[in-house]
Amino acid sequence: MSEDYRSMWADLGLDLEAHDALLGVLGQAYQDIYLPQKNRPEAMGYFDFVMSEVHGLRIRELLDEKAAGRKIIGSYCVFVPEEIVLAANATLVGLCSGADFATEDVERLLPRNTCALIKSAFGFKIGKVCPYLESADMIVGENTCDGKKKAYESLNDLVENLYVMDLPQVKSKDGKALLRSEYNRFKAAVESLTGVLITAESLKEAIRTVNAKRAAVHRLSFLRKADPAPISGLDALLANQVFFYDNPARFTESVNKICDELEKRIQNKQGAFPEKTPRILVSGCPQAVPNWKLPMIVETAGAVIVGEESCVGERGTRNLTDEAGKTVDEMLDAIVDRYFQVDCAIFTPNADRLNHIQEMVAAYKADGVIHYGLQFCQPYLMEAIPVEKALEELNIPCLRIETDYSMEDVGQLKTRVEAFVEQLR
Amino acid sequence: MSEDYRSMWADLGLDLEAHDALLGVLGQAYQDIYLPQKNRPEAMGYFDFVMSEVHGLRIRELLDEKAAGRKIIGSYCVFVPEEIVLAANATLVGLCSGADFATEDVERLLPRNTCALIKSAFGFKIGKVCPYLESADMIVGENTCDGKKKAYESLNDLVENLYVMDLPQVKSKDGKALLRSEYNRFKAAVESLTGVLITAESLKEAIRTVNAKRAAVHRLSFLRKADPAPISGLDALLANQVFFYDNPARFTESVNKICDELEKRIQNKQGAFPEKTPRILVSGCPQAVPNWKLPMIVETAGAVIVGEESCVGERGTRNLTDEAGKTVDEMLDAIVDRYFQVDCAIFTPNADRLNHIQEMVAAYKADGVIHYGLQFCQPYLMEAIPVEKALEELNIPCLRIETDYSMEDVGQLKTRVEAFVEQLR
Repeated sequence: MSEDYRSMWADLGLDLEAHDALLGVLGQAYQDIYLPQKNRPEAMGYFDFVMSEVHGLRIRELLDEKAAGRKIIGSYCVFVPEEIVLAANATLVGLCSGADFATEDVERLLPRNTCALIKSAFGFKIGKVCPYLESADMIVGENTCDGKKKAYESLNDLVENLYVMDLPQVKSKDGKALLRSEYNRFKAAVESLTGVLITAESLKEAIRTVNAKRAAVHRLSFLRKADPAPISGLDALLANQVFFYDNPARFTESVNKICDELEKRIQNKQGAFPEKTPRILVSGCPQAVPNWKLPMIVETAGAVIVGEESCVGERGTRNLTDEAGKTVDEMLDAIVDRYFQVDCAIFTPNADRLNHIQEMVAAYKADGVIHYGLQFCQPYLMEAIPVEKALEELNIPCLRIETDYSMEDVGQLKTRVEAFVEQLR
Repeated sequence: MSEDYRSMWADLGLDLEAHDALLGVLGQAYQDIYLPQKNRPEAMGYFDFVMSEVHGLRIRELLDEKAAGRKIIGSYCVFVPEEIVLAANATLVGLCSGADFATEDVERLLPRNTCALIKSAFGFKIGKVCPYLESADMIVGENTCDGKKKAYESLNDLVENLYVMDLPQVKSKDGKALLRSEYNRFKAAVESLTGVLITAESLKEAIRTVNAKRAAVHRLSFLRKADPAPISGLDALLANQVFFYDNPARFTESVNKICDELEKRIQNKQGAFPEKTPRILVSGCPQAVPNWKLPMIVETAGAVIVGEESCVGERGTRNLTDEAGKTVDEMLDAIVDRYFQVDCAIFTPNADRLNHIQEMVAAYKADGVIHYGLQFCQPYLMEAIPVEKALEELNIPCLRIETDYSMEDVGQLKTRVEAFVEQLR
């Protein structure tokens, strides 16, 4: 990294020494996990570059946007509508939460029995190692799970610009009305932050931009139906991860370039793994950068991941927003219609999720499902038990995993995953 | 227990052998914990009797009510409004959830990392040992914490008559509207179950009945301000526990009788413990029958508990419902006003709770607070950290405890509680 970046990070208030250590670990993990993969699409070079510049060039871009008067909004959840942010001429970025950091300090503010994702968000703040968080003019929390809901109360003491969005727990008429009301309130907050009034034109353009981004990852997902799988699960996951913080138009273009290449690979029967490699659908909790542990284990165990039923994956990107609305209100209704379909385990009941898992198993010709649960993530861990039972009744093999961000259980997970993959052959 | 009860339990489908074992443990615990207490008010004899007949006479009464056409509704939470139930000529009972039962079977349906209270509710159902649950014509779940919210989805496979009430997470206008809408829906469900239409008269009478019950426990709480404390925390907790399933009018009368006696004791400077005994406020998770572990430890460590900031305690009984309403709608509004003040940790933010803890510390002249958290209860465990910090800043000593229903940690808890009490002298 250049000296230029170091002064940028210092200006953002990062702890340079700790940040160096983080980037060292991140870079090493990428080098160990991503680069040894065989038969990668050439167009993944873009994402290699993005990762090498993850706290560099992208942050420089955000700071340039800020210098030009644009606001940066950080989020921890797929329920925060990027359409509203873009329409107010602001930029939405996903915030860092995929690695343990400053754990001892974090556990003074949060119970030890808190999921790794939440602890990580606190660790990156307390450790001063997340340039996205430090660049953000507004940080959006949301009342999804109890863990996040209550953690934001403490995060509010650590950051100056936290905005908390309430969310429904039931997909009822009242639930939908609450989401509508909260998106309206969010729109007003974003307009107030940016000083930009959202218009029908700007909202329509924003809907199109985000839809294009989603359509590109849908196209990528669709291509993973092929056998041999034209792209590894690790590479596809990376695209889904970068979805959250890259420039939307450039991201769309880059994913489409990968898709162009994958189409040729499919024609040529060329795969990232050989034909007939056991195919796995991963379902459950989000996997944020650099949490590549499970896909690394799966894909070095002789299987290929063909889909992610996850917020960093199809749960987050499924469904486009209807573009037909003419007024801001009509378009907000369409946005609510779209987000209200997200089948997060915070909803009760959440039957859609099981349907989606089955649909994805069929569409991507998965031989089995690995349910990925973060330890202490109550909603997904509780839902995992009936999901596993239902899949087994449908004769879909399911392996239920509960883990965290540490590397301590890699050996044990490898053994379990290898045995599961063996059973799928 | 008489043979008569055995055939009643058999008719309810209880597992008689398991139920015998449970009653054996329960009776022994009561004998070991309650009966050795010194200087108990004579009027506690009523509660000794209630406990000796907890699965006997009270169940017989409920079955007699059922035979006469009255419906029984079971609940796990103080958000289920007894006023609505009584007004429809039905009876509300709290359901069993204070002891581990059938744990191995429970952990096939729920993650091990689920709080003891939720596991217990499942254990009593799976083990067929809860005559209240088996007598109930409707079981009401509610979307409070993630643990309960998701667990009800599985409980729905175990019972035939589950009704789930949605609850807000924020004390906003939208949140209050949701509670109002849900109480309306509940009213309709109860009316449909009972075939009884709630009228302004029946609702007013129900409000008065429940208010009288609450006023009696308020009176009891008020008397605990005296030094020496006229009643032990264990005995006061028992009254708060029996609150949930006794006949309301008889309960009110019995608590008022205790209060009459306590007033005389206070005049005579007669206490359950000597004057100047260190005084403790317990704050946090509910303590359902027979979960007497913490108060037993505290009150055998030379301290007295003078208040429970808990759902089984003042959080559950604080505030009366305004009786001035003339129409059913006005009274429902008043009921919503009353319940919307409950400061459960599921709400975010939940500043009222810290205010109430401080008020209770002052009112009951507590020397310190013990925060009682059930392991894996995310809302209370997460809130406990800022609560402890705030109390310490106010120079109110606080001991934060995390435990479950097992007896394995009694020795360790005793050591910690004794050291805490020593510090208060």
